Amino acid sequence: MVIIMQTGAADSEVEAVIEAVEKAGFRPWINPGVERKVIALLGAVDAEKAELVDHFSALPGVERVTLISEPYKLASRRTHPEHSQIQVGPVSIGGRELAIIAGPCSIENREQMLEAAQAVKEAGANLLRGGAFKPRTSPYSFQGLGVSGLELLAEAGRLTGLPTVTEILHPADLKTIAEYVDVIQVGARNMQNFRLLQEVGQIGKPVILKRNPGCRIQDLLMASEYIMLEGNSNVVLCERGITSFENATRYTLDLNAIPVIKRFSHLPIIADPSHAAGDWRYVTAVALGAVAAGADGVMVEVHPDPPTALSDGPQSLRPEKFQDLMGSMARVAAAVGRHIGTLAEQA
Amino acid sequence: MVIIMQTGAADSEVEAVIEAVEKAGFRPWINPGVERKVIALLGAVDAEKAELVDHFSALPGVERVTLISEPYKLASRRTHPEHSQIQVGPVSIGGRELAIIAGPCSIENREQMLEAAQAVKEAGANLLRGGAFKPRTSPYSFQGLGVSGLELLAEAGRLTGLPTVTEILHPADLKTIAEYVDVIQVGARNMQNFRLLQEVGQIGKPVILKRNPGCRIQDLLMASEYIMLEGNSNVVLCERGITSFENATRYTLDLNAIPVIKRFSHLPIIADPSHAAGDWRYVTAVALGAVAAGADGVMVEVHPDPPTALSDGPQSLRPEKFQDLMGSMARVAAAVGRHIGTLAEQA
Amino acid sequence: MVIIMQTGAADSEVEAVIEAVEKAGFRPWINPGVERKVIALLGAVDAEKAELVDHFSALPGVERVTLISEPYKLASRRTHPEHSQIQVGPVSIGGRELAIIAGPCSIENREQMLEAAQAVKEAGANLLRGGAFKPRTSPYSFQGLGVSGLELLAEAGRLTGLPTVTEILHPADLKTIAEYVDVIQVGARNMQNFRLLQEVGQIGKPVILKRNPGCRIQDLLMASEYIMLEGNSNVVLCERGITSFENATRYTLDLNAIPVIKRFSHLPIIADPSHAAGDWRYVTAVALGAVAAGADGVMVEVHPDPPTALSDGPQSLRPEKFQDLMGSMARVAAAVGRHIGTLAEQA
Amino acid sequence: MVIIMQTGAADSEVEAVIEAVEKAGFRPWINPGVERKVIALLGAVDAEKAELVDHFSALPGVERVTLISEPYKLASRRTHPEHSQIQVGPVSIGGRELAIIAGPCSIENREQMLEAAQAVKEAGANLLRGGAFKPRTSPYSFQGLGVSGLELLAEAGRLTGLPTVTEILHPADLKTIAEYVDVIQVGARNMQNFRLLQEVGQIGKPVILKRNPGCRIQDLLMASEYIMLEGNSNVVLCERGITSFENATRYTLDLNAIPVIKRFSHLPIIADPSHAAGDWRYVTAVALGAVAAGADGVMVEVHPDPPTALSDGPQSLRPEKFQDLMGSMARVAAAVGRHIGTLAEQA
Repeated sequence: MVIIMQTGAADSEVEAVIEAVEKAGFRPWINPGVERKVIALLGAVDAEKAELVDHFSALPGVERVTLISEPYKLASRRTHPEHSQIQVGPVSIGGRELAIIAGPCSIENREQMLEAAQAVKEAGANLLRGGAFKPRTSPYSFQGLGVSGLELLAEAGRLTGLPTVTEILHPADLKTIAEYVDVIQVGARNMQNFRLLQEVGQIGKPVILKRNPGCRIQDLLMASEYIMLEGNSNVVLCERGITSFENATRYTLDLNAIPVIKRFSHLPIIADPSHAAGDWRYVTAVALGAVAAGADGVMVEVHPDPPTALSDGPQSLRPEKFQDLMGSMARVAAAVGRHIGTLAEQA
Repeated sequence: MVIIMQTGAADSEVEAVIEAVEKAGFRPWINPGVERKVIALLGAVDAEKAELVDHFSALPGVERVTLISEPYKLASRRTHPEHSQIQVGPVSIGGRELAIIAGPCSIENREQMLEAAQAVKEAGANLLRGGAFKPRTSPYSFQGLGVSGLELLAEAGRLTGLPTVTEILHPADLKTIAEYVDVIQVGARNMQNFRLLQEVGQIGKPVILKRNPGCRIQDLLMASEYIMLEGNSNVVLCERGITSFENATRYTLDLNAIPVIKRFSHLPIIADPSHAAGDWRYVTAVALGAVAAGADGVMVEVHPDPPTALSDGPQSLRPEKFQDLMGSMARVAAAVGRHIGTLAEQA
Repeated sequence: MVIIMQTGAADSEVEAVIEAVEKAGFRPWINPGVERKVIALLGAVDAEKAELVDHFSALPGVERVTLISEPYKLASRRTHPEHSQIQVGPVSIGGRELAIIAGPCSIENREQMLEAAQAVKEAGANLLRGGAFKPRTSPYSFQGLGVSGLELLAEAGRLTGLPTVTEILHPADLKTIAEYVDVIQVGARNMQNFRLLQEVGQIGKPVILKRNPGCRIQDLLMASEYIMLEGNSNVVLCERGITSFENATRYTLDLNAIPVIKRFSHLPIIADPSHAAGDWRYVTAVALGAVAAGADGVMVEVHPDPPTALSDGPQSLRPEKFQDLMGSMARVAAAVGRHIGTLAEQA
Repeated sequence: MVIIMQTGAADSEVEAVIEAVEKAGFRPWINPGVERKVIALLGAVDAEKAELVDHFSALPGVERVTLISEPYKLASRRTHPEHSQIQVGPVSIGGRELAIIAGPCSIENREQMLEAAQAVKEAGANLLRGGAFKPRTSPYSFQGLGVSGLELLAEAGRLTGLPTVTEILHPADLKTIAEYVDVIQVGARNMQNFRLLQEVGQIGKPVILKRNPGCRIQDLLMASEYIMLEGNSNVVLCERGITSFENATRYTLDLNAIPVIKRFSHLPIIADPSHAAGDWRYVTAVALGAVAAGADGVMVEVHPDPPTALSDGPQSLRPEKFQDLMGSMARVAAAVGRHIGTLAEQA
């Protein structure tokens, strides 16, 4: 059983609940260091808990009390049967229109960023991505432009009218990133950086949470729970390939994950064919497969000149290839009852 | 370097080639027990070999001499740049029309087989599957009806006009199976049963070769090479899910494998969403994803009454669900420039 | 529930049991094409079955009736609480003495085979391995000497006094192999070639069953059940590495599998560090690790001159390295209460 | 090529190097936000770089210039052929004495911590572990006592004389943690939290870096490079199990990783059998296997009363089981030329 306090509940109210829990014979656990207090009852069996729901619900400062039968609660479709839609500027991720998030892996310079932004806008993308803080396997690789990259991304967003997405690596950058971009991305490597998830959850902005390539679907849903428990339910999940023994591609897109997540969670799920395939030659096929399987969007790396890219060149599409992909995606989307914004308007 | 002898080359011709190889300073290796002799030169470096191609090509009984730079040769797109099309009755697998192979996992009795056959025929499938010899993880599970199952499958094929597919487990059954069915399936568990592959290759019938869930794409192509080297190039590959750490589904469909195989091989590649997902709830999403990604067809388990199925019930579609899938697949196929036979005719 | 008939039960007895099963309201399933008939009751719930054990046990020709709560029965430690020991010549695999099975991957010629045999004998191995029929990923690779290889292996066995082990690929070779060698090995690629398992089970000889690198421990135990159900309980399991995303080594030795198998099964479990590591540099460390973790023996590839080996050269130990390994293994074995025959005698 | 500046090099010196790099025709890349500046030359081919080593080495403020042929440099055995030994109190990790790091998963209260500390000390452990900040898959699970946990750990360390180890989750906690403990652990989930690695690297304390279960050995070595590049070469690697398809255990210990890491890196490598197996029943076998394979130590979870543990109870050893393990480990260690401190002294 979990007792979720109201945001801003007084310390005395929290203490009174704790006392009540102890009096009822259970050990209370309180999540530390976050705004919204959640008190879990450790060691209690389900039957005992059920009787106490009303008792605890009535205490001052308590928002709600829930009996958790599956490990994730807020992300579960049981507690939220309809699909969630996350509004980002004019796009409603999880609705009938697909989210097409495109742009370069890394922001490298003004010319590259603006050119990429213009190209993806023209092709029909509705969100602009660009990395300013890059998590690189090697310390000798390009690590991103940092804040000056954020400025370029924001400028490109303004010029094209596209909402922007960038990745957070370090909690210290959170406020700065939140000032510059519309959507905060938690990358695969930080999917279980739980403290970062909590801090990101305390910012109101929509979050794209990428699946760690070594983690199960349930772990991804549990990670989203960390964000949602802070009061931010604007979470978009992203399947970007898992590790497997197959070495013909960089990762293995877990196509099954799309219908599985749709079954168990109300959160939107998008796919990242660029990382999953790791080779531009396969990106179109994988993107179309994901859309046909029900993905709510795709995140695609597009670079004006992939061979000179400072990161992920081999898996980045040239603008003209991306335009072709958009045409194909519009047809496949239509075949499964979805559409792509710009192209749909033209029709 | 590999010296491929003509089928029916005389023993004296083979011996003369071996002598020539030894004289040139190399150790010959001859594939044993198969009709078409292939003599490989062991221990030779590439540069040395290249000079000898003409020398050996000129010997009597030699069909061709090839320098192999990639591990598979006959399956490679380099030696056969256009897509292969495998003709099975009226269907050309690998052409614009998708191969839709449907039917029950196991043939259980006459009523079930005929009902399933009628249902998949009406929904637009163009090949009929049914297992008579079943490879079961447990010796206590139903192992198939054997020859009497083949008879039922053949009857169902005649009644519906659909070509039939069944799996071979034991070399001793090969001739019997070949009498009853149109396409022989080598299941995932026998993908590297090389002797079986060779014997299947000596039968002229088209072969569906399923990927072993623990094997790489390259291993699958090498396995197809065993069949093709026997003179049978009518091989259809099938991606049916690989093992991974994800346990929300039975296997993980390797969507990437579809464009990868299309790039490196000319052989058709189909997908089996039933085994990959292991749950009927996910079959439609996975099937559509595979078709959008470029699969040349799908193999789907359909059972008139899944809860009573003697094998794979949880992943089998009811006929009405299969009909829905066919409708969706027709739309997705059209979106990627393919079509489904029956439905296309109706349009 | 499974009704196991006596070997040689009359057809009329089998039919009477089937009738009784149907009369009791269940669907009988009979394993086809094997000597010992096993009749399983399909569709029955456990409670119903329990009451019928005595009823069916009393029928003529019935050997025993078992309620199966775990998927494997004969391999389970529940039905056989003490460790099984498989006697092979003077060695008792599963006892305190470790089984050290060594020799070349492939038998290449008389000199190589005898030299390798002499070397491993001198170093203290107690079983001699050599491949005559080789399952090779590529059809262009050396496929083994066949029967003439078996003759060389048998000769080497006679000369050294070591019992011999070789791999079976094709059911047609079974009788020939059984004439020449003491232990039949079912290789990883055939672990789920169930029909081969059944036929091997009908031969009385001890069997080494290697784990398929893509299969779970439970699948391995189920595969052993196929052999044991034919009346042959002389099965030795072998962990030889599983597939994983790690590509620094050929496979990943699943060390955990050793205590897991010891917990759930009474069958001996040995390890194959040569295949698991795929590089002779790692073989010693992996072999010692397996012995310390409780393996009942190891299978190691030893070749007089690895660089010229026709298969698995990179992972084969030179005789002198093998001798070093034996010394280290003797010390580690002693540390965990086991010993190596020859060396222990010398001590 | 990488130009490593001296710690505290003047900005003007860094700028002069950058200018020199650009003048030589290359694009410089500077790692941002860390104390020790490293300037990488992007886009340069190896041959060109080699000629410039002396040129750049001579510039003021440059510590050294290295041509990197493998992706990790400082962690490579090529640059440091002998084994590294990391001194922690009286223990030299990587030397002949094994590091035995034991204690509870989570610090729960004073009594539990002191009891566990006393028990592992008596059994012969030479480092004490205890988690104060816990990375938990579920936000509803116990997240650790935080700073008050650190206080208890420090007290237990003082009372037993054992150096202490705890895990860092959030950069903000780094200084506090460094005040309380002797060794900082970066957990598996943060192995690629590169910014955290950099900050940890700037603290002089020894670091235990655990392998992420979805990451390759090479990724682990690259992660250690992030720490070492900050000037902290006191890094101990830890293999704690990787994800695989096997579900009989929580993770799969990658035993091969031990000799692989020993071959390519000079850093000590220890094993964590508790997480790798996930079940106390297997911990002893796995620990012994790791030691026999050459691990420089083990990290074992020990709890006075596992059933009441707030985390990882099922994989924690009771003190008496741990004592048994220590006895067995002493024997296996001796068999491979290593020893355990206390017990060795007693012998």
